[in-house]
Amino acid sequence: MLAYQLIERKRNGGTIEPGEWQDLIASYLRDEVTDAQMASLLMAIYFRGLDRDELLALTDAMLHSGASLDLSHLSAPRLDKHSTGGVGDKVSLILAPLIASLGGAVPMMSGRGLGHTGGTLDKLESIPGFRTRLSLIEARTQIERIGCALIGQSEEIAPADRRLYALRDCTATVESIPLIAASIMSKKLAEGLTGLVLDIKRGSGAFLPHVERGLELAQTMVALGARHGVPVVALVTAMDRPLGRACGNALELEEAIHALRGEGPPDLMRVTYALGAEMLVLGGLATNRDAARRAMEVAISSGRAAEKFREVVAAQGGDPAVVEDPSLLPQAACCELFFAPNAGFVATVDPRRVGFGVIELGGGRSRPGDPIDHSVGFVIAVRPGDLVREGEPLATIMARDSEGVEAGRRALQRAIVIADEADYPLPLISHRVTVDGTMPYESTDTPVEMAAVP
Amino acid sequence: MLAYQLIERKRNGGTIEPGEWQDLIASYLRDEVTDAQMASLLMAIYFRGLDRDELLALTDAMLHSGASLDLSHLSAPRLDKHSTGGVGDKVSLILAPLIASLGGAVPMMSGRGLGHTGGTLDKLESIPGFRTRLSLIEARTQIERIGCALIGQSEEIAPADRRLYALRDCTATVESIPLIAASIMSKKLAEGLTGLVLDIKRGSGAFLPHVERGLELAQTMVALGARHGVPVVALVTAMDRPLGRACGNALELEEAIHALRGEGPPDLMRVTYALGAEMLVLGGLATNRDAARRAMEVAISSGRAAEKFREVVAAQGGDPAVVEDPSLLPQAACCELFFAPNAGFVATVDPRRVGFGVIELGGGRSRPGDPIDHSVGFVIAVRPGDLVREGEPLATIMARDSEGVEAGRRALQRAIVIADEADYPLPLISHRVTVDGTMPYESTDTPVEMAAVP
Repeated sequence: MLAYQLIERKRNGGTIEPGEWQDLIASYLRDEVTDAQMASLLMAIYFRGLDRDELLALTDAMLHSGASLDLSHLSAPRLDKHSTGGVGDKVSLILAPLIASLGGAVPMMSGRGLGHTGGTLDKLESIPGFRTRLSLIEARTQIERIGCALIGQSEEIAPADRRLYALRDCTATVESIPLIAASIMSKKLAEGLTGLVLDIKRGSGAFLPHVERGLELAQTMVALGARHGVPVVALVTAMDRPLGRACGNALELEEAIHALRGEGPPDLMRVTYALGAEMLVLGGLATNRDAARRAMEVAISSGRAAEKFREVVAAQGGDPAVVEDPSLLPQAACCELFFAPNAGFVATVDPRRVGFGVIELGGGRSRPGDPIDHSVGFVIAVRPGDLVREGEPLATIMARDSEGVEAGRRALQRAIVIADEADYPLPLISHRVTVDGTMPYESTDTPVEMAAVP
Repeated sequence: MLAYQLIERKRNGGTIEPGEWQDLIASYLRDEVTDAQMASLLMAIYFRGLDRDELLALTDAMLHSGASLDLSHLSAPRLDKHSTGGVGDKVSLILAPLIASLGGAVPMMSGRGLGHTGGTLDKLESIPGFRTRLSLIEARTQIERIGCALIGQSEEIAPADRRLYALRDCTATVESIPLIAASIMSKKLAEGLTGLVLDIKRGSGAFLPHVERGLELAQTMVALGARHGVPVVALVTAMDRPLGRACGNALELEEAIHALRGEGPPDLMRVTYALGAEMLVLGGLATNRDAARRAMEVAISSGRAAEKFREVVAAQGGDPAVVEDPSLLPQAACCELFFAPNAGFVATVDPRRVGFGVIELGGGRSRPGDPIDHSVGFVIAVRPGDLVREGEPLATIMARDSEGVEAGRRALQRAIVIADEADYPLPLISHRVTVDGTMPYESTDTPVEMAAVP
């Protein structure tokens, strides 16, 4: 009866009170509120939204449905980054050891592939022996010891979110900004963070392609963090093309290792440094973003960042030798080049088509729990705006067999469009959202006017 | 996956194709589509609506999910009436035998009490021994023999509607015009009718209080009937006060028996005759509504209508003696008058408060399956606009005990408002909706201008 009244009120545009959210979530976990009632409420929320107080209360109720990672005894700042998901996005794999090597404690909880995007956990499991399922105690001990853990969402954390997420996933109620915000923040707040940085993707390969919706999500989460006492900074980055060159689990892990050694592609490094600089400043580990960037460059060039990744791999049961020799990662049986069918400008490298192409090769799941082949994927050498000659190699296809090569070729034929003209791609980093508001992104803290004065 | 795409499409304002509705309903009945998915879709329909083709296809899918009552071999027209539900509405109990006594075949399928309203089945079960659960075969045989059966929705009829209705009832998706229309029409079309008359209630005691929403429902069902080849006429009637005087199961049955004997209160008789006239004209049993009314008056004054009710009661296992002697119906232990607390005009007799008062007395259910006391209720002697003196009796309370009398008194104190002025009540019958459009209601077929000419 309670549930009925809350659904009806939300449906009619009313608000649900904090105590009611607590009761509702608790009753749902006790199976006194049915999945059908919750699905109906989620769809009503899709249409009616949640106000700021409702969002806070729902997030709190989800957060408190489970355990938290208590790291408050550490002197190091607890920092994490969350991305709304894209293709070729291996930033987490680089940032976690990089920030830990600079004194941050990074309790990075990640997910599996979703839709057309890959998942950090799947990429990590390319490393023979690597364990992503740590208990909260194990994760805590590891963070105390080496400053970083790369783990999946533990069963202990926010069980209400896990149930609600599974329900949204089969009832077409995923694309609701307050529900996305509550889901992400309930998990991130359970990590006991002192600072959180968000990478909000925009463009055709993002789950929320339109920048207005992305900004709304960013602003919602920044405000939600502030109300929980956790400073949050969000950057809006481009997902109208893949990030970096590698798309596929082991290939992306290899690219991340190259990046940790100072050999990452420029777009990937720019996004990594931009997000990392925000983390270091939030954690008080750098006085401004310029200083933070220099510190990260030194951590990489000195080998300390790569060494930290080696420690993490070893601590979580993986073979640390992969960090020196990525050829120890699973290798695809077939490896063929993909050539430009004609000359012109690269107009599009469609991230959804690339992402679904990886899944077709066997590198992602069609259904939850499917096994995946970590070795397959693409390395794409070109990006929108590049001028190419007919017959020039554009990408490499890694596949299990010749059938896979053909599937990969078909996917790239649809994904890479060569035309007489190319539109400008989206700016790589376009907006910065903090509690003070939303601003165009400037990569430096040094005012531009001053830099121009001799 | 199918269900997900259909939910997403409806959520985004798209349309679902006829074949997809068939698949969806069939999959739901096979438990391949979950209650949660269906609840999410129902809420999306609440917000997005259904277009005419979608409504037709959903109604068809629900209709064909079960058996039909095949009466096509009868020479008599198959006629039924459906009301959207109100307080004191005992019209079905009168109309079914009345129309059958004039040559119609009336396969009247009714429901239980819902919300603040009573149910025809509950009222019939006031009669000792009366069986409302007949199989389709039994109903068919009885209609062949005596022209009428008063039954509950058989398990065989529209099982998809039964499951969807139960789901809507706990997920706050009842108040959706296309879902209401599909639910009603899928059941009524399964009766194999040649004509259907709808009583669309308006006013504070109606499920859709606003006349605009009631008219939208009427027009939707009239169009739906036309597309199934079943002529439908809808009248919009007042439910800003109870209909007739008696509210409560046995009390209403008794009032219906009085009406069949020519002793019904004027408002009840006007609504009954208006709806009955439409049925007789639709069935070709009268050439126009004036002739139909005269035929009904004769059926009542000759005793034929009451005799038909006697036959129905006997055929369904009830004690037919109640028709001659309604005192054989269950009698409440306590019977007390309710007096006017002050002089003035009766401003309101609030049907919701009266209806919930009957439930509080034990005459309705708080939960499905609760037992009910058929004897309790109210007989309300006044209606809005009446001038009353202080201390004048306004109503009689029938209750189980003195506690019940007190509860009834409190309910009537809230329901009956006496003031210095009274607004005009709603017109008893305000609109008539047919395939030709929506018109103000005129009670006669004789044009008013001609009648005025000497």
